[in-house]
Amino acid sequence: MRNNETICALATTPGGALGIIRISGPRTFDAVSAVCTLHCDTVAANTIHYTRIIDAEGEVIDEVLVSIFRAPHSYTGEDSVEISCHGSRYILNKVLELLIQQGCRMAQPGEYTQRAFLNGKMDLSQAEAVADLIASSNKATHHIAMSQLRGGFSSELSRLREQLLKLTSLLELELDFSDHEDLEFADRSELLNIAKKTDNRITHLARSFETGQALKNGIPVAIVGKTNVGKSTLLNKLLRDDRAIVSSVHGTTRDTVEDVIDIQGVTFRFIDTAGIRQTTDEVEQIGISRTYTAIQKARIVLWIIDAEPTTEEVKDMIERSKGKSLIIIQNKIDIQSPVDSSIFSLVSQLVPSNDPQPSILQISAKQGTNIDRLEKTIFESANIPELSEQDIIVTSARQYHSLLSAQENLSRVLSSLESGLSGDLVSEDLRLVLDDLANITGQGRIVTDEILRNIFTHFCVGK
Amino acid sequence: MRNNETICALATTPGGALGIIRISGPRTFDAVSAVCTLHCDTVAANTIHYTRIIDAEGEVIDEVLVSIFRAPHSYTGEDSVEISCHGSRYILNKVLELLIQQGCRMAQPGEYTQRAFLNGKMDLSQAEAVADLIASSNKATHHIAMSQLRGGFSSELSRLREQLLKLTSLLELELDFSDHEDLEFADRSELLNIAKKTDNRITHLARSFETGQALKNGIPVAIVGKTNVGKSTLLNKLLRDDRAIVSSVHGTTRDTVEDVIDIQGVTFRFIDTAGIRQTTDEVEQIGISRTYTAIQKARIVLWIIDAEPTTEEVKDMIERSKGKSLIIIQNKIDIQSPVDSSIFSLVSQLVPSNDPQPSILQISAKQGTNIDRLEKTIFESANIPELSEQDIIVTSARQYHSLLSAQENLSRVLSSLESGLSGDLVSEDLRLVLDDLANITGQGRIVTDEILRNIFTHFCVGK
Repeated sequence: MRNNETICALATTPGGALGIIRISGPRTFDAVSAVCTLHCDTVAANTIHYTRIIDAEGEVIDEVLVSIFRAPHSYTGEDSVEISCHGSRYILNKVLELLIQQGCRMAQPGEYTQRAFLNGKMDLSQAEAVADLIASSNKATHHIAMSQLRGGFSSELSRLREQLLKLTSLLELELDFSDHEDLEFADRSELLNIAKKTDNRITHLARSFETGQALKNGIPVAIVGKTNVGKSTLLNKLLRDDRAIVSSVHGTTRDTVEDVIDIQGVTFRFIDTAGIRQTTDEVEQIGISRTYTAIQKARIVLWIIDAEPTTEEVKDMIERSKGKSLIIIQNKIDIQSPVDSSIFSLVSQLVPSNDPQPSILQISAKQGTNIDRLEKTIFESANIPELSEQDIIVTSARQYHSLLSAQENLSRVLSSLESGLSGDLVSEDLRLVLDDLANITGQGRIVTDEILRNIFTHFCVGK
Repeated sequence: MRNNETICALATTPGGALGIIRISGPRTFDAVSAVCTLHCDTVAANTIHYTRIIDAEGEVIDEVLVSIFRAPHSYTGEDSVEISCHGSRYILNKVLELLIQQGCRMAQPGEYTQRAFLNGKMDLSQAEAVADLIASSNKATHHIAMSQLRGGFSSELSRLREQLLKLTSLLELELDFSDHEDLEFADRSELLNIAKKTDNRITHLARSFETGQALKNGIPVAIVGKTNVGKSTLLNKLLRDDRAIVSSVHGTTRDTVEDVIDIQGVTFRFIDTAGIRQTTDEVEQIGISRTYTAIQKARIVLWIIDAEPTTEEVKDMIERSKGKSLIIIQNKIDIQSPVDSSIFSLVSQLVPSNDPQPSILQISAKQGTNIDRLEKTIFESANIPELSEQDIIVTSARQYHSLLSAQENLSRVLSSLESGLSGDLVSEDLRLVLDDLANITGQGRIVTDEILRNIFTHFCVGK
């Protein structure tokens, strides 16, 4: 019903040399033909035409190029036109106004992509990848979004569903012949084997969400240490080479440029621990608690020292950074002698044997000594899996929650199979898992307006 | 020589759903084909193709639409391609990087339009109109730029040159037969008549520059008056309805949104006279002098009073706003009785008989009474000529200076003709006028690199 309407929107940010206006829907060609000198329905699909946009008073609004797309061979799957105008706000507003006078309405955020989904041009996970792709600011996030857009995740899910459907049909066949006790269609151990493999894979996918979030938002790094150990100097050193690039990447998406650097295509986001730097004795406690909060939020902790720490301090820092990657950095090696190595043997004794050993580095932030090695260490500490073409990283909270639900339902399947419960109960839980997985792509399902709204409100208008 | 290079640039502002990359020059198709899966030289002109941009490692950078333009039927007159990418900065930077690896170089500001000029697709006055069109933020500036882009000014100039050439050829014919004293090819009074008409037209065009500048930069309006007469309230009232539109228009072109309003498609720019508002006695003099400076810069002066001004004050304000449009506004009519009309008879006596009479209005800024009438009065006071399709308004300082030079040279032609000087001197000056007019469009002339640089550095990159 909603698709009966013809929508229009600016698909570019105003202010450039060009501005692109997109029109899509059943009345596209009529509406565009009414505001310019071209008869859109008489020209071939996928062709470009020079024409003039003219208002009701006969005033020429712009000389433009019009690109013609015919259903179903367009982004939305509908008849669509793109008008390439001069990038003046006056012109762009005026053209949109003229189109609205012709019965078009302004598109909602993501409405073009929503129509692409509704017309079967892509599934929901691909639609979500479109927004991620536009927002991608480095190699890693770009890679994940592009792989998902190209259907990597979708085919993985369909493989998993195939396995589960095989399981279900075997179980249901068994149920149909349940009075023949001698018949055994479904070998329980084989069923268990398939279910376990699927569970492993789903768990793996769900776990990737943490990496996905870290890559999407930047991996949080806390720089901690006493006043005057050189935290700011080190931060500035790390930012210096990269700042120009970072500004150009984050300039419009965030109001203020955060302290972020890109290392090997991954964004690292430094958490402000300024609190500890300028405290007087009275408020030192606040400073320290802020630093602890920073450590808690971090995935990597850079602990900067310029003199030998006490055993207490070492113990405390190891305790605080449990579950994180700790990098101990002795700064100022250009003017100070190396810290006694006995303290570092203490470190390795204090870390539980199962936990990774902290990295220990000696640098001079001022002179730039060993900064390369530090960057390499930071990158390695992030434990980002090597992203190959096939790798799937889940970045959408919606997809993650479906995976968690699938995990939960599948765990019931596993315990039922293990305890030899009857096939019909297992089969019911299996159906729930299949539903969960189907929710991710939305294929073969009725997707509610609420779900669509949740997904597409995060899009920009014009996509 | 410069045109042997193939150039690339982003033609849209990053941050939107789409980003358009433009490539132009002899190696366009080779370079684009090398970075995607399409063979650009095998496809028809003015067609659109779906393809994938792939980097050297085989990583898919984006799924894009490629538009093909073949020389000479393109904006630049060269082989050109536009790549419509997802609007991610990472993707756009990456695609530009890949094109540069294929031998393209980043385009200079306005270089596409410069090539269009060099390839005879437009003259210089049209090229300058392109930048004006992109910058146009209201109906008036849009109209002027569009009319100039469509060749309105160019044809006016060619008509003038035709007249002058006729004059020249008559004079030169006369010179060729100068020994035959009885022959009279050029009737002096007819020549004078033609020269005078041309002079009138050139003077008219040169005068339009003031209007052009006012429309381009916004017409300066000073709001002056004593503390607490309601200047801020009035300004806010005027801004209120329009502010949203104004912000969207001026948001990216100026760092801070100025106090500007659009009335009937023309921008009015309010000059801050805050200086007078918060002065103590010691610094009052500074405040007053600031207000006087504001009045000097203004084209329209809004003098706000809330009580009867003294004769001295009236005299002073009329003296100060000589040559400007003065609007006297009695504010607070909701709570105060009208000012005695005898003071306004004084006003009409004090204004020199040749000068326009100030407008007098009674309003309540707080209640919004008569604000509509005030806006109408402000618009009328600006004395903007009705802009018809044929109207030519000069907005470029370069064109203006050529017109001034033409005026100067033509004035010598006129006095020579009037004083009956010999034809060869007149003819020489006429050639100079023709040169001046030819400089405006650059047609049939060798345009120096310096002139090109001056014109096109004001463009955005990508146009």
